[in-house]
Amino acid sequence: MATTLKGQPLDRTTLDALLRRRMFYTPSFEIYGGVSGLYDYGPPGCALQQGVIDAWRKHFVLEEDMLEVDCTVLTPHEVLKTSGHVDKFADSMCKDPKNGEIFRADHFIEEILENRLKGDKAARGQTAEDKAVDPKKKRKTKGAAEIFKLDDAVVQEYEEVLAKLDNYNTRELGELIQKFDLKNPATGVQPLPPVDFNLMFSTSIGPSSNLRGYLRPETAQGQFLNFSKLLEFNQQQMPFASASIGRSYRNEISPRSGLLRVREFLMAEIEHFVDPNGGKKHPRFNEVKDVKLVLLDKQTQLSGKTTVRKATIEQAVAHGMVDNETLGYFLVRIHLFLEKIGIDQSKIRFRQHMANEMAHYATDCWDAELLTSFGWIECVGCADRSAYDLSVHAKKTGASLIVRERLSEPIKVTEWEVDIDRKTFGPYFKKNGRAIEAALIATTQSQREELSKALGTNGSLIIEVPGVDDGKVSVPNELIKIEQRTRTENVREFVPNVIEPSFGIGRILYALMEHSYWTRASEGGDEARGVLSFPPTVAPTKVLIVPLSNNDAFRPFCYELSQKLRKIGISNRIDDSSATIGKRYSRNDELGTPLGITIDFQTVQDKTITLRDRDSTKQVRGDEDKIITAVRSIVDGSKTWQDIESDLPAFVGQETEVAVR
Amino acid sequence: MATTLKGQPLDRTTLDALLRRRMFYTPSFEIYGGVSGLYDYGPPGCALQQGVIDAWRKHFVLEEDMLEVDCTVLTPHEVLKTSGHVDKFADSMCKDPKNGEIFRADHFIEEILENRLKGDKAARGQTAEDKAVDPKKKRKTKGAAEIFKLDDAVVQEYEEVLAKLDNYNTRELGELIQKFDLKNPATGVQPLPPVDFNLMFSTSIGPSSNLRGYLRPETAQGQFLNFSKLLEFNQQQMPFASASIGRSYRNEISPRSGLLRVREFLMAEIEHFVDPNGGKKHPRFNEVKDVKLVLLDKQTQLSGKTTVRKATIEQAVAHGMVDNETLGYFLVRIHLFLEKIGIDQSKIRFRQHMANEMAHYATDCWDAELLTSFGWIECVGCADRSAYDLSVHAKKTGASLIVRERLSEPIKVTEWEVDIDRKTFGPYFKKNGRAIEAALIATTQSQREELSKALGTNGSLIIEVPGVDDGKVSVPNELIKIEQRTRTENVREFVPNVIEPSFGIGRILYALMEHSYWTRASEGGDEARGVLSFPPTVAPTKVLIVPLSNNDAFRPFCYELSQKLRKIGISNRIDDSSATIGKRYSRNDELGTPLGITIDFQTVQDKTITLRDRDSTKQVRGDEDKIITAVRSIVDGSKTWQDIESDLPAFVGQETEVAVR
Repeated sequence: MATTLKGQPLDRTTLDALLRRRMFYTPSFEIYGGVSGLYDYGPPGCALQQGVIDAWRKHFVLEEDMLEVDCTVLTPHEVLKTSGHVDKFADSMCKDPKNGEIFRADHFIEEILENRLKGDKAARGQTAEDKAVDPKKKRKTKGAAEIFKLDDAVVQEYEEVLAKLDNYNTRELGELIQKFDLKNPATGVQPLPPVDFNLMFSTSIGPSSNLRGYLRPETAQGQFLNFSKLLEFNQQQMPFASASIGRSYRNEISPRSGLLRVREFLMAEIEHFVDPNGGKKHPRFNEVKDVKLVLLDKQTQLSGKTTVRKATIEQAVAHGMVDNETLGYFLVRIHLFLEKIGIDQSKIRFRQHMANEMAHYATDCWDAELLTSFGWIECVGCADRSAYDLSVHAKKTGASLIVRERLSEPIKVTEWEVDIDRKTFGPYFKKNGRAIEAALIATTQSQREELSKALGTNGSLIIEVPGVDDGKVSVPNELIKIEQRTRTENVREFVPNVIEPSFGIGRILYALMEHSYWTRASEGGDEARGVLSFPPTVAPTKVLIVPLSNNDAFRPFCYELSQKLRKIGISNRIDDSSATIGKRYSRNDELGTPLGITIDFQTVQDKTITLRDRDSTKQVRGDEDKIITAVRSIVDGSKTWQDIESDLPAFVGQETEVAVR
Repeated sequence: MATTLKGQPLDRTTLDALLRRRMFYTPSFEIYGGVSGLYDYGPPGCALQQGVIDAWRKHFVLEEDMLEVDCTVLTPHEVLKTSGHVDKFADSMCKDPKNGEIFRADHFIEEILENRLKGDKAARGQTAEDKAVDPKKKRKTKGAAEIFKLDDAVVQEYEEVLAKLDNYNTRELGELIQKFDLKNPATGVQPLPPVDFNLMFSTSIGPSSNLRGYLRPETAQGQFLNFSKLLEFNQQQMPFASASIGRSYRNEISPRSGLLRVREFLMAEIEHFVDPNGGKKHPRFNEVKDVKLVLLDKQTQLSGKTTVRKATIEQAVAHGMVDNETLGYFLVRIHLFLEKIGIDQSKIRFRQHMANEMAHYATDCWDAELLTSFGWIECVGCADRSAYDLSVHAKKTGASLIVRERLSEPIKVTEWEVDIDRKTFGPYFKKNGRAIEAALIATTQSQREELSKALGTNGSLIIEVPGVDDGKVSVPNELIKIEQRTRTENVREFVPNVIEPSFGIGRILYALMEHSYWTRASEGGDEARGVLSFPPTVAPTKVLIVPLSNNDAFRPFCYELSQKLRKIGISNRIDDSSATIGKRYSRNDELGTPLGITIDFQTVQDKTITLRDRDSTKQVRGDEDKIITAVRSIVDGSKTWQDIESDLPAFVGQETEVAVR
């Protein structure tokens, strides 16, 4: 069950009402009825996001000299065709033939099977566990669970299907719908067989509508395409990482789960380029080797369990659970980042992808999952994309996306080589010459060996060249030579592998809001009040300045203090509204403002002010300089509230009374 | 003529080569052949952009407690239909019927007329002034200028047309093409009559392709739609401003001028909401009233001149040149921001829009224009959008986008009111009822007076209702009542007006790069070397750390120093490549790194290091602590290099020799 920061049961409806009331987020275009899957961040959400991004940039980009780039969202068709997204970046979708309703196939199956299991539980006189069913889903279920007892074997089958629902492909999902005779409760009919729906938003670039393009589904491609320039910028030194923070887009079939599944979202991605030889060591692995992570590996999951292990990354890499040092290094760095911004340490785990669950480009992948009221949610992916992307782009464009490493000792290389007689080859094939040449050069060593044999026996070679004629081209023997030769090399060329930590900032923000939330009983016995205990570093506003009343005498003090704080880069707001001090502090507890300063009549006399801690509601008092110093040290993380309490005298004057009213 | 920071003639080709070589920017998807109008920022461009955005956020959002929001780029059709963008956000485009080439009509006319004028000048034996023609444009001109003398009257007519080319509409542009018989030099034929081409990228949202959407052309609409929530967040206090930093999109017909006219760009926009009554005063106007601006008002332009006036904003507002205090306040704030980030003060002017040049929503507009090698370029617009946007969205959606102000004394209001007999009205008009009711309620006071007269004479009223029947609807008299009544009001309701400073960050960055650029003769007599003298606050990297050689003894010093600087938030890079110190400094002069620290053999003995100033190449020496303090004070702006030179002893050791080699 989801809990608050203080272990109370988390009531998502109440939290959600708070987040909307305080404008952390709001549905986009709400006065037009809204568009599902699109949300705006209001002032505190926007500032929190900025705080998290600043922390990310310091923790990753600056700390590790990463090369940050900012690439366009608009991406031409050809790039995403090559990367595989045009063909493979899709979800299964099915349509009700009667009312035209469209479902994501896996969600449809999940909903109906869960409903049947609930009906079965009711029939057996058990209370249905609501763990996996959130209130929003419940509203969407058109039919109430029919009370109907199922065979034990059927119950087991349904549960197994639900457990591995992520792993079925489109055809298999269609088979499940048929097998279990799943019908749309709204119409009573079975949906049509599911089809693939590509999740990219498409558009056309330029006035003549002939350059098809998409909104990027990830920032990664822009980084890959710039690889050679980045390597040059990095003065040819390896390994290095690029990084990018920017929006990406997925045209979700039926967005749900609020901020967790949206159509437009901010990502922060790192592409760390590493030599595939030598075990993918990382020069700074030693600095992190003793950090313990909570790990859920694929073997455990394959055996149907979710038992996590806690291990140092050194152990995890040594035992082969985590493939290599570089992957391990980044898992720890991700963990430390999440810790820094205030994610609850007891609600993080790293889960390894199973083979059939990985994206088309990945060879290994671990997700940092955060526990929320929606269950364990993937918030950061850390994939080993191997040489996939650089290779396919190089092959498609002919660009040289490689690293050339000077060898300390020359080596001898024996390889099959293709020589093309350029004088005759070009004129013979005319416009198809380049494509055919590219196909020849793209052949593997074993293909070349085969071709060389064929060359000895036939008058011409048949080569597969997609897009030319019927895909097969006949090349006369006299135009090419294929021979095995041995040469000496002083330079080693290789395509780097890529380790990619990829952060969904919106999901992290949502988890952070849930993890920071708790409720405080008010002394007056009113209903409990919400508090968002963000760490000062990421809190939207650092200091609230409240005059005791809207007496004119307080105004210059507030203004001057506000300016002084701003000058040292500490964001603050004055609340001189007519609400009670208690109400004003309450509002700012909901906004997650960690510190409050009260200006009262004593301030006018002796220039002392009180400083209040959001989490304990305790106060200390001191002159302006001392309080500003205290604020600064809390905001930059060098001191805690406990330190401040021992530095400055506690304040239990009359304002405390007002504060809890 | 464009000049460098030091007044040298600016060679754009050389600068552009530098900017690409150092990866300030690069064409997107270059290995795929690129897409015109799309560019990526590499590491230094990205960091410079971040520096400018940070400065913007501090200067505007934090300094003035603006409410920053982050809205989606995807925007449904209906919103942009209401805002007027679907109908009016277009450029004129024409097509060559022979080869299908597509031109932006005004660019086509400009190019051909300029070519004819050049041919005329040549015929008259004058040298063609190249001021307005940049090298890129020249390359694009298919035909070389034909040497042909024109009549004096024709020359004058061409020049007049060129001077006001921004002001013609699509039909008029077509007439010019016909009148002057303008032909595409590539084919010798006249293009087809121009048509409007909408500049928004369109897409569809969701799986069923029935929700049409666009990529936003500005961030403003998201801010307007959230107006009521923002007012509530601001505890109903007026005036206030919202702000947003994010990408916007324009599907330019034929992007040119490099980074200045692109299809995807970063904007920073402020929407300041102000009471339209009381002359739009600004509470902080007094703080800026004595700042002098360079102003080019519309009267001057209408008289065909470009003579600027230098005036304090107080004078400009007092004389009615700038309409009101709020507009004036923001013009000064814009000016101060541009100054802060390093824009050349002699290359800024504020130009007022002429009536026919303004966007469809604006009632007054001033552009901050920056002088570049492309001429004066609009980089910031500051428009008074009046109540346009809030009114149209309120009217369309029925949302209440107003401010309710409690009156200190009640007032009596006499107004024509429309009463609708709901019991009969709805059933009578059925599905059209709401639209007809909305049209009645939208009538103005004078229209109501007219309608009331008609009501007395005819049996029914004819009302214009767009979209219902043929646009005119007959309403029987018995369904409505129109009367003049007097009521007492305690609350005043008004739709706020909006003053909108809107920043094109990419254009500002480009101007900043040109304004910061100059070349330094090297002592060795080689070719001049480029320097980008960015102010330390926005410079991509603040400090370069260079060991004298790649001797291992230097490594720990470099690493430790780098970590110390990073800890206090100062970005730095170590360059321990094998290039000479001079070459390494040269590279960083091109990158705009303001400070360099050299680690040499003396460092190993006494821990002193040298600090080099990018602009003067002078060096001082001191122990690590003193140098770090100096670096910090330069980066935070509290000291200049001159201050440091008087604090610390100059260094003229052997490294100087190396540095200039």
